[in-house]
Amino acid sequence: MKIDVIAFDADDTLWENEVLYQNAQKRLKGILSPWEDPPVIDRVLYETEMRNLPLYGYGIKAFSLSMIETAIQVSEGEISGNELLKILDIAQSMLQAKIRLRPYVKETLEALSEKYPLMVITKGDLLDQTSKINRSGLGDYFSITEVINEKTPEAYRAILKRHDLLPETFLMVGNSLRSDVLPVLELGGKAVYVPADTTWAHEVVSEFDFQSEDFFKLEHLGQLPGLVAGE
Amino acid sequence: MKIDVIAFDADDTLWENEVLYQNAQKRLKGILSPWEDPPVIDRVLYETEMRNLPLYGYGIKAFSLSMIETAIQVSEGEISGNELLKILDIAQSMLQAKIRLRPYVKETLEALSEKYPLMVITKGDLLDQTSKINRSGLGDYFSITEVINEKTPEAYRAILKRHDLLPETFLMVGNSLRSDVLPVLELGGKAVYVPADTTWAHEVVSEFDFQSEDFFKLEHLGQLPGLVAGE
Repeated sequence: MKIDVIAFDADDTLWENEVLYQNAQKRLKGILSPWEDPPVIDRVLYETEMRNLPLYGYGIKAFSLSMIETAIQVSEGEISGNELLKILDIAQSMLQAKIRLRPYVKETLEALSEKYPLMVITKGDLLDQTSKINRSGLGDYFSITEVINEKTPEAYRAILKRHDLLPETFLMVGNSLRSDVLPVLELGGKAVYVPADTTWAHEVVSEFDFQSEDFFKLEHLGQLPGLVAGE
Repeated sequence: MKIDVIAFDADDTLWENEVLYQNAQKRLKGILSPWEDPPVIDRVLYETEMRNLPLYGYGIKAFSLSMIETAIQVSEGEISGNELLKILDIAQSMLQAKIRLRPYVKETLEALSEKYPLMVITKGDLLDQTSKINRSGLGDYFSITEVINEKTPEAYRAILKRHDLLPETFLMVGNSLRSDVLPVLELGGKAVYVPADTTWAHEVVSEFDFQSEDFFKLEHLGQLPGLVAGE
């Protein structure tokens, strides 16, 4: 495979992330259990997140503001300040959570970084994402980190242009068909899909043309060096 | 003046910003008036912001989470959900506020962009800052936009390195001695200080050596083209 640079998504590709949100949602449902059933709370939270997305963007602070709004709505304003403090506490725990690497991450980056420049391309909150890269201990493997608002073809195109890269020799690796695979294929790049155990509903794509010769699917990141070497 | 590139701070340099926060604080003090006097609320909010800064970073979402925490603390948990909704409403208004340019911004960028590549270097929330650049109508004047977590000498050094720039021919323009001037002078760059009408307490620097020959102070941005041209 002819490649000049390999770029990695971060959340749920390099480290566990969605599980943090799911645990937070469990705690939220516990706090709101006097008022509403869990499936209703899930639905209201998701609707609130989607409504706020254009204004808040991705990330834990955005999620936390949506959790607070959901709590007030579901409780019809009855929720007490002290219970809302518990939601702020969820936010702070999430921002400080220990980074749990996904399987084979360290040895894969170790091997690939000897042969290719590696990038991180992630969307979300700038401070939280850069803090996670530092806390993960993986920072030294990456020569470039890009935190962007949305993973659109235009956003990828801008990154390639900024670093003088050609789409044909650009490989993106990630767990989201919607964000890591489709936009990269659209502009002529190569993409490797490594599904995570759990994926946020917003990132799920139902239909996809798996026939592209620039598309690859792996069970885990440990298979990536072999794929790239053409084995 | 020998310059290769001119970089601008954004908030309170290109457009009004602090006034948004001050108006938000006024509304917060109105909401919390049943519980506490305005100066106490200001103090608790500032302490809360400073405590949360390492975790939340800068920007409106961070500020809003700190407003909510302050409201719960000041009211000793008594504040109702419906009153907290008003605080979320403040956050959403701030994120959508009309951009009010500072004096002489447009003509200055128009004139300088014909002779120099211009950059924006701003700290804060990625989505909010890029959204403001778009909404300001100034986007086309800038060839590079950098949103960073903190304006430290290391952060400026990384930006210069990334774009192959030398400090000696780099000029930074902004309203904060702490963020826009001191770190740039420290690494051998030039800095222009254009005070804003109001500056956040966190950004105020009390002592400063105004003797550096790389430091310039202007009354307003309209004086910048003349300064750069050596008039």
